[in-house]
Amino acid sequence: MSTAGKVIKCKAAVAWEPNKPVVIEEIEVAPPQANEVRIKIVATGVCHTDLYHLFEGMHKDGFPAVLGHEGAGIVESVGPGVTEFQPGDKVIPLFISQCRECRFCKNPKTNQCENGWAADSHDVMALAESRFTCKGKKVLQFMGTSTFSEYTVMNQMAVAKIDPAAPLDKVCLLGCGVCTGYGAAVNTAKVEPGSTCAVFGLGAVGLAAVMGCKAAGAKRIIAVDINPDKFEKAKVFGATEFVNPKDHNKPINEVLAEMTNGGVDYSLECVGNVAVMRSALESCIKGWGVSVLVGWTDLHDFAARPIQLIAGRTWKGSLFGGFKSKDGVPEMVKAYLNKKVKLDEFITHKMTLNQVNDAIELMKHGKCIRTVLSVSPQ
Amino acid sequence: MSTAGKVIKCKAAVAWEPNKPVVIEEIEVAPPQANEVRIKIVATGVCHTDLYHLFEGMHKDGFPAVLGHEGAGIVESVGPGVTEFQPGDKVIPLFISQCRECRFCKNPKTNQCENGWAADSHDVMALAESRFTCKGKKVLQFMGTSTFSEYTVMNQMAVAKIDPAAPLDKVCLLGCGVCTGYGAAVNTAKVEPGSTCAVFGLGAVGLAAVMGCKAAGAKRIIAVDINPDKFEKAKVFGATEFVNPKDHNKPINEVLAEMTNGGVDYSLECVGNVAVMRSALESCIKGWGVSVLVGWTDLHDFAARPIQLIAGRTWKGSLFGGFKSKDGVPEMVKAYLNKKVKLDEFITHKMTLNQVNDAIELMKHGKCIRTVLSVSPQ
Repeated sequence: MSTAGKVIKCKAAVAWEPNKPVVIEEIEVAPPQANEVRIKIVATGVCHTDLYHLFEGMHKDGFPAVLGHEGAGIVESVGPGVTEFQPGDKVIPLFISQCRECRFCKNPKTNQCENGWAADSHDVMALAESRFTCKGKKVLQFMGTSTFSEYTVMNQMAVAKIDPAAPLDKVCLLGCGVCTGYGAAVNTAKVEPGSTCAVFGLGAVGLAAVMGCKAAGAKRIIAVDINPDKFEKAKVFGATEFVNPKDHNKPINEVLAEMTNGGVDYSLECVGNVAVMRSALESCIKGWGVSVLVGWTDLHDFAARPIQLIAGRTWKGSLFGGFKSKDGVPEMVKAYLNKKVKLDEFITHKMTLNQVNDAIELMKHGKCIRTVLSVSPQ
Repeated sequence: MSTAGKVIKCKAAVAWEPNKPVVIEEIEVAPPQANEVRIKIVATGVCHTDLYHLFEGMHKDGFPAVLGHEGAGIVESVGPGVTEFQPGDKVIPLFISQCRECRFCKNPKTNQCENGWAADSHDVMALAESRFTCKGKKVLQFMGTSTFSEYTVMNQMAVAKIDPAAPLDKVCLLGCGVCTGYGAAVNTAKVEPGSTCAVFGLGAVGLAAVMGCKAAGAKRIIAVDINPDKFEKAKVFGATEFVNPKDHNKPINEVLAEMTNGGVDYSLECVGNVAVMRSALESCIKGWGVSVLVGWTDLHDFAARPIQLIAGRTWKGSLFGGFKSKDGVPEMVKAYLNKKVKLDEFITHKMTLNQVNDAIELMKHGKCIRTVLSVSPQ
């Protein structure tokens, strides 16, 4: 019996308040409105940004919400005016839209569409826009996506149609972490062949950045982390050297300067820590070094001495790896299917949506690279 | 009677200690050694960086020194191994060298030669390298140049030979301020035709940045200063609009965002103030805005929220406008002779070296754009 046009009751992990475990609840998911697509989420990664909202962001207006923004699924039904999608299409929900019409979409320099939810809020979709209700209360859609739910509803400008051959429990990682890190190297830093790179932080984003540096032809890729357990994994993605700042008595930028005759050509901060951001900039060579903020934090200022930039370094930032989302994600899915991009190697744990709090705990304690939750059966 | 090979006794303005007027003294200038050129300085501008050293930098090891780094002169004699220069050549001393051999000189991305004095010290040439003595004491060469002296000695890699038709009392400004501002727009920001720019601070460097934005084809050039007396001058160089932050109750970045539908494409900080650096970044449009640090300060950190970069802005810095010095300065001299670049309009005061303290006072109180001191008769 078709569910199109009807409210769907399904399971979702609701974050009722900050700093508490999420709760598996039955929620109501309204039918898609004009230009919207209702998606059955098949699989989702658990990303640090979910934790950030839950534990570190302290967004008082961000609850209750359904977290999750790194998912993949199948179109269940579409609202009026949707011609691009039909039920059964494999899709990835996008936390950055690509309307193709705004001045940002039309400018090749950026992926920051101004017509998505994110233009107004970097946390959650406005209540009026959310299609979720639980126990009579409207529930927010975190990052516009909410992939910790069996069903979600998104505007079609924030949905990417992908190759039907794509395994959803793998390509879900292209919904955030892997594109973010890979693109930061390839699109934002624009790493050049033969160059020397340093990647700070070897979570999924950092490992994807390592993979991006390698794909761009970097000759040396120095992986930096205070957890040496990550180095084996980094090697898989292309890291050539490893530095644990704890092994040295001097600042990491001095260690890297010695290893590289003055500093690296590119550094990527994949932690989301302002002290590391500074170190990453200072680790770049004067004259042409480029440092990219990839990790997310909004709690503190990042800072450095003016001479660091005057001496010729460039400080940039990357959101979703600079990929125009609807264009970039299907390309990355193809690259995975063609074995140009690794995904399986990121996945250290597989669980079900019911175990989401276990997955969150693993990530909180740095015990995983990526946990993929199966959400709905395909 | 030739002075070649002999010590020259001449007049120079010696800064004996911080926060005190400089003193016109007789100094001894040793003959040029291998690869060095001794230059009779004909004219020099007074730049804020001179003041910075004297009053704000508090470099305890930077005294005694002869300040001045924006000069022009005539080769008096050359040391062994110098083939590029001969007595009588018109030249501009360069505070950034261009050896043409180091990896920085060979890389088109940067002008930061590693073989000049500046690679070791950003303030003064080491005592051992200075050719100055006064009252039996070695005197440092500020920024390697020391143009507040009738004669100076420089390594040939830091001297630009210029068109013999060039008026030295004008083109001296190309030794620092004008190249710094103009190049920051053209070479570092790489301002694009049709774009909207904001220039913060309308001293000589800021006005030159305005001129650079215009030369690059900017459509709107918004001149920002808390001294509205500077707006008339900014118009001469191409500014199209003027904003005095003191006329507004809201932050300048909000004012500019309203004027420009979200922010400017390029902003140039020509003050050397970390709060202004932040405002300049925040005044850029998300997605592709580029902000360049041009003003010099080393007393504090500059800072911003990570989201400012993550949202797609780029923070850069510019030293000597990104010009490879020996290549760029003669080109800029030609551009002046061909009326493509203005210089006369920067000069608000003309004095002699004896009046250097008066010139410093004028600059300290923002009463001039540029004072040019005549040093030696031609």
